[in-house]
Formats: sequence, structure tokens, C-alpha cells
Amino acid sequence: MDDDSAEADTAPAGPPAPRTRAPKSEQTRTLILETAMRLFEERGFDRTTMRAIAQEAGVSTGNAYYYFSSKEHLIQGFYDRIAAEHAAAVHPALAGTADLADRIQATLLTWLDVAEPYHRFAAQFFKNAADPDSPLSPFSADSAAAREAAVSVHRQVLAGSSTKTAPELADRLPHLLWLMQMGLVLFWVYDRSPDAARSRRLVVRTAPLAARAIALSRFRVMRPLVAQIEDVLAEFLPDAREP
Amino acid sequence: MDDDSAEADTAPAGPPAPRTRAPKSEQTRTLILETAMRLFEERGFDRTTMRAIAQEAGVSTGNAYYYFSSKEHLIQGFYDRIAAEHAAAVHPALAGTADLADRIQATLLTWLDVAEPYHRFAAQFFKNAADPDSPLSPFSADSAAAREAAVSVHRQVLAGSSTKTAPELADRLPHLLWLMQMGLVLFWVYDRSPDAARSRRLVVRTAPLAARAIALSRFRVMRPLVAQIEDVLAEFLPDAREP
Repeated sequence: MDDDSAEADTAPAGPPAPRTRAPKSEQTRTLILETAMRLFEERGFDRTTMRAIAQEAGVSTGNAYYYFSSKEHLIQGFYDRIAAEHAAAVHPALAGTADLADRIQATLLTWLDVAEPYHRFAAQFFKNAADPDSPLSPFSADSAAAREAAVSVHRQVLAGSSTKTAPELADRLPHLLWLMQMGLVLFWVYDRSPDAARSRRLVVRTAPLAARAIALSRFRVMRPLVAQIEDVLAEFLPDAREP
Repeated sequence: MDDDSAEADTAPAGPPAPRTRAPKSEQTRTLILETAMRLFEERGFDRTTMRAIAQEAGVSTGNAYYYFSSKEHLIQGFYDRIAAEHAAAVHPALAGTADLADRIQATLLTWLDVAEPYHRFAAQFFKNAADPDSPLSPFSADSAAAREAAVSVHRQVLAGSSTKTAPELADRLPHLLWLMQMGLVLFWVYDRSPDAARSRRLVVRTAPLAARAIALSRFRVMRPLVAQIEDVLAEFLPDAREP
């Protein structure tokens, strides 16, 4: 990400970036990422080494480290991929409706669809992700890019909805919906019902509840509560917290 | 728990229970539990065997298994102890005030006080407890006794408060406060601030918020939301869920 932006800043003044290499290097990156995810699932995250991943992918260990500076960064690559797939899949799902409950439900059910192929894998490595100081945690600084991608989906959910929200919460609500999504992910990771039926049920039950709470936030009687929630979020949400 | 109630039911009709043995066996039980917690902390939960615990405690392995049928049951013993210590410590903390926010805050801060000596230990084994199907999970059937003890503390919190609550939520609110406490525990497990200052701060910030939300639940405009929350809790709270 940083490299890309640096390139974008300097490219107009210097020679064109060697873009012809990009597709090949993107292929190698994808190959390493997919090999890693398969090995994590087969052998477990803790027992899979970068050397083994490189060997299985048919690249040198040095080359693997060139793309991913640690195993943890491979998980970041996985987060980025899920976030990108979700953002793409959610677009048509949101096109049909301005009803906030429907939009929240469609967004979360789409996430479950996108994530389903990785269900076993997610349960396997989740132990390592629960610590917010771990780079694997969705709350960590390392996860900022994937988190921002997920939050921006929820910005679309709210922006395209017919529900008016409390103005003082406008900046926080997408983060709050993202937090709801993280709660769903936690539930889903350990959901062993067929086709994650219980997770789907949880979405169907809580989406209207979240939509109603958001709609209520504009009522005068709710204002002091809304202000308190805003304060707590400002202090404790990942991108607001001081290290 | 079950043994105690069975005893209480039958004791009046039969001969007195052999109470003279209880103190010694209680001592042995405590010795095994404390040894286990020390070894879990020193060596890690996964790498500590029942055999090693028995040896270190100076009892036979068979004797250790007599008191705790698995390592997981030792953790249950730990939960029960924390819950009992909390219930005892919270009593004086609640005596002074009928204000709901103060009562919630006192209850959660007292929990942090009681739990502090086990902080490192909790972080160490928490990985094993995050799975709700694990007997170590606070949401598991095996944890029902410790959970009920914790919920009953929150029943006292509400019962002694001057805040009137929505009648249809009366049975659920203690569970909801317990869920809030579990959120705090999750935060605290990974809180590395000195003296868990951030966890304390989270309590101070969220206790008035929870109290206000509970007070608001009686307003007519909130009724549909309250009904939805009640439905979701009835379906998804641990003691309501079907296996």
C-alpha cells in the first residue's frame, strides 16, 4: 500500500514504473498467498513455516519473504482479499434497496457467503487473532487497511439508506456497524451449524434491531445516550485509540 | 453444586452427612486447584499434565482425578472461585448506593479487583476458552454454575437499584449485564495497561451508558426495539440456546 502511494506520488516526474512486471509479480503473490492458506489449513498456522510455504509454491524462501515479510503478513493478505471480495459482492446486493435493515442484512449475509470457503481456516488461526496486540487482530494497526475497506462498505450501507441518522453519530456509525460485523465474525468462527445457519439466523434477527436503534438515535430522548456512546467510541474504537 | 442440593434435600430424613471429612477433602481440592493454576501460569495450560499437577501437589494422580476429572474441570474450579470471590466482594460495594450506574460500575470494578491476581494466568489460557464449544468457554454448558453465580450478582445489582426497568426485559437484563461483563473480560484479558487502567476506564465510561439504556427501555418509543432485543436474547443467550 505504502509502496503504491509512494510510486503514485513520484511517477509523474520520473520514468514510468515497470508496470510490465506487475501481472507476473501479482501472480506470484497470489500463488504464495493461496499456498500459505492451504498449508495453514492442512498443518495449522503455528506449524507452517515460510520455508515450507515457499517450497510448496515453488519459489525461493527469499522470494516469499519479498512478498510477505512474515507469516502474519500472509494473514493480512487474506484479510485484504476477503475485504476486497466482500466489497465487490456487496455492490449488487445493495443496489436493490434503500431500507436500512435490508441493507445491513444483505451486507452481513454477503460477508458470510464470501467467507464460507475459509470457514475451517478461520477457526484454525483465530486463536492467534484474538489478541488486539497481535498483528493478526482485526483491531491491530497492521489491519488498518483491511479495516478501513470494511468500514467503507458500511459507509455505503448507511449513505444509500432512506434512514436519517443522528448527525453527531454520522462519522461513528460505519465503525459501529463494522464492530457488529466483528461480533458476527466471532460468532461465525465457532459456528458449527450446517452452512453457518445459526450465523445467518443471527444476521436476520439483529439487522432489523440495528436499523431500528440507528433510526431511534435521532429522537430527542436518546440524545444523552447517543452522546455517551459517541464519547466511548471516540475513546475506544481501534483507529481512535492511543498506543 | 448438584451434590450439595441433593444432600440438602435428603439430609433431614437420613443420617447426618460425614461432615468431618469435608474440611480435609476441601483442603486437598484447594491445594490441587492452586497448584494447577501456578503450573498453568509457569508452563502454559497445554503443556501441563494432570500427572505433573498431582506430583507437584504431593497427591496421587488418581486422587487428582478424583477431584477434577480433567484439566478443563480445573479451569471450571477457577471460574467457580472467581465467581464466589466476586459475589462476596460485591456485597459491601453495593450496600451504599441505589443508583444503577454506580451499582454497575462498582460491580465491574470489583470484578477487576478480584480477578487482577489471575490476569497473567487468564491471558495464558484464554486461547482455549474462546471456543463456545470448549468446556472452558464461559458460554459452555460446563460453565453453567459459574455463569449462574455471575448472573445472580447482576440480579442483585438491578433489584437494589432505584431504576425501574421494562417489565418484559426483567428476566433478561441480568443476563445482558453478564454479557457486558464478558465483553469487559475479553477486553481485560488483553489489556496490558498498568493496573488494567484501560479496563477500569472502560467500566467508568460504559456503566452510566448501560444504566441510561436500561432506564430508556421503559419509554414507549423504545418498546419495539426492546421486544426485538428480548427475542434475540431468548434465542441466542447461552442458557436459552439449543445444542
